[in-house]
Amino acid sequence: MGRSADYSKQKCALAGALDIVGEPWTLLILRDSFRGITRFEQWQESLGLARNVLASRLKSLVRDGVLETRVYCERPRRHEYVLTQKGYDLRPALLHLMDWGIKHVYGEESPDAELIHSCGHRVAPQTHCAHCSGELLPYDITLRRIPEARAVGELRLVAEAL
Amino acid sequence: MGRSADYSKQKCALAGALDIVGEPWTLLILRDSFRGITRFEQWQESLGLARNVLASRLKSLVRDGVLETRVYCERPRRHEYVLTQKGYDLRPALLHLMDWGIKHVYGEESPDAELIHSCGHRVAPQTHCAHCSGELLPYDITLRRIPEARAVGELRLVAEAL
Repeated sequence: MGRSADYSKQKCALAGALDIVGEPWTLLILRDSFRGITRFEQWQESLGLARNVLASRLKSLVRDGVLETRVYCERPRRHEYVLTQKGYDLRPALLHLMDWGIKHVYGEESPDAELIHSCGHRVAPQTHCAHCSGELLPYDITLRRIPEARAVGELRLVAEAL
Repeated sequence: MGRSADYSKQKCALAGALDIVGEPWTLLILRDSFRGITRFEQWQESLGLARNVLASRLKSLVRDGVLETRVYCERPRRHEYVLTQKGYDLRPALLHLMDWGIKHVYGEESPDAELIHSCGHRVAPQTHCAHCSGELLPYDITLRRIPEARAVGELRLVAEAL
């Protein structure tokens, strides 16, 4: 499978997410999806990635239901890759990682890139609870764990058997 | 450096973030930091990770300013690892990735784990603009790019020279 880390014994939703999108390059492939890239050659140009690595990542993302293929030319038959709802739902996580990169890697003082909201200001994402609208602060959240939860590797076996 | 992907030519804040926290296991090490883990042996027990891999990840996280060391015993001298503000600021991204894992990997119908807010409900994180309080929707955001932005590899060289 070309996976570079074995999270299969972890019983954890974050590990489950990383098992699908934690592979090197995968989140950058999805970043490009959100920017409107849908075709193999466009990713190649954007990422400068070896064809076999790119093909393998796209195949995994389709298998895991994050991207889906769509035929855009019948003769010769060609397809492109578009985000599913599952893929689309990764957007807040990517937004926050990008915001962190702008703030802490590129530096807030001399921004090399900025996310601009339609209100005209730099995006400063804040995370709220959709139920009570309160800001989500660290000690306001508890993780309710279920002891008999399945491990990531078991989930993967179930998914592959479908 | 043991990096498993070369993002050095990318001019992108997300790539910059992944260059620091995209390594396999790194986000799970940080997940454990947020749960209060600070000592080498605790991570070993939690992750079942080879000592040399764990030591290398912790060293990188300290070098990159995401964790810092704190002496907790003088004789013999022992230290633990705690989140810096830079590390702490990764929390929303982890929260959203975990939420995605609960929803799309573990499955919303039969949750194996849930994030519970102090309001008593399952956390459904929503991302808002801190300036205008509007929800951040995909097409409300534009990326203002600066053509002469430095690539991730150049940033790394600058950081290492400090």
